[in-house]
Amino acid sequence: MVQQYEIRLEAYPRGYHIITSQIMKQVPQLPETGLLNVFIHHTSAGLMINEAADPSVLTDLESMFNHLVPENLPFLVHTMEGPDDMPAHIKSALTGVSLTIPISNGRLKLGTWQGIFLCEFRNHGGQRKLTVTLYS
Amino acid sequence: MVQQYEIRLEAYPRGYHIITSQIMKQVPQLPETGLLNVFIHHTSAGLMINEAADPSVLTDLESMFNHLVPENLPFLVHTMEGPDDMPAHIKSALTGVSLTIPISNGRLKLGTWQGIFLCEFRNHGGQRKLTVTLYS
Amino acid sequence: MVQQYEIRLEAYPRGYHIITSQIMKQVPQLPETGLLNVFIHHTSAGLMINEAADPSVLTDLESMFNHLVPENLPFLVHTMEGPDDMPAHIKSALTGVSLTIPISNGRLKLGTWQGIFLCEFRNHGGQRKLTVTLYS
Repeated sequence: MVQQYEIRLEAYPRGYHIITSQIMKQVPQLPETGLLNVFIHHTSAGLMINEAADPSVLTDLESMFNHLVPENLPFLVHTMEGPDDMPAHIKSALTGVSLTIPISNGRLKLGTWQGIFLCEFRNHGGQRKLTVTLYS
Repeated sequence: MVQQYEIRLEAYPRGYHIITSQIMKQVPQLPETGLLNVFIHHTSAGLMINEAADPSVLTDLESMFNHLVPENLPFLVHTMEGPDDMPAHIKSALTGVSLTIPISNGRLKLGTWQGIFLCEFRNHGGQRKLTVTLYS
Repeated sequence: MVQQYEIRLEAYPRGYHIITSQIMKQVPQLPETGLLNVFIHHTSAGLMINEAADPSVLTDLESMFNHLVPENLPFLVHTMEGPDDMPAHIKSALTGVSLTIPISNGRLKLGTWQGIFLCEFRNHGGQRKLTVTLYS
């Protein structure tokens, strides 16, 4: 059994945002046992599973990814869409755009501290589109 | 329903290469709704979904990953297979070797700008083997 | 057909550890054709597929990830749980926590040199919990 849902996320500011409940609200019912795949249809945003309990983790992820992939590196040539664009593509390559998570006993089986994050790498990324696919 | 296909890619030069149509040509027919998984059976290459419209993105990915993981770092000890080998393993750890993508209406549901990339991290990586698995 | 298994890993020291046979021992039987998903329920550890033949690769991965994400960076604010904690979350974001691998002819279809790695990013991470989901 496959079920699929398209989700549109409102525009989020640049940074890391916990969207677990946002996603689950738009998925009518989970199967008893299976897998859930979330896919983001963009190349300057990403998806990640990380610590959803303390907001300082979100801040530090933003700081650290900016440290690893700073803007205005002199060797970048894809600069037409602004200094935050190519770094956004690189960060998206590092985090990935697709997550697969087990479903057990009719619930998403995340660890105690885990949440699903939208990684918004652009200054003004606008709305983002996700596809959720359930397998059972 | 599971279907599986093995794909052999010709030797590509070091760098990032869009292989979406290459893959789709060797997959006879997509199911109406499902997931497609692509897996690369190598430890010095990777797979990535990124911006497939402007070739300067490919160039910048190569520059940036070389910047993050330069060759000849003095603390690396796995150097027997050449200066491009251990950096290739590290880059492969960063990009990953497995992609899962939704299928909708009988088509691969990538975003407008998204493509599947082969990341060839070796100077002379040779032919590469992929397995494509379809779920419906 | 979906089958699911929970696996508890003993406490491993900080570093990279090949756990392919550890996982396979706890999965009774693989289907003929399908996919295997491994998921780790933690935010300061990760999963990776990489070169499982030469132990120097494991050492170099530890050195390189420490080089990319050093401890005690002055701009990090999530420091309450020790200097190895926030770097562990960042490394986990880079490697990911979920792997999907094809199954062919009743066997896990890894490349010749590939193995599944537990990435233990904490100094004292303790036991770790995995969920393995099989699809056929």
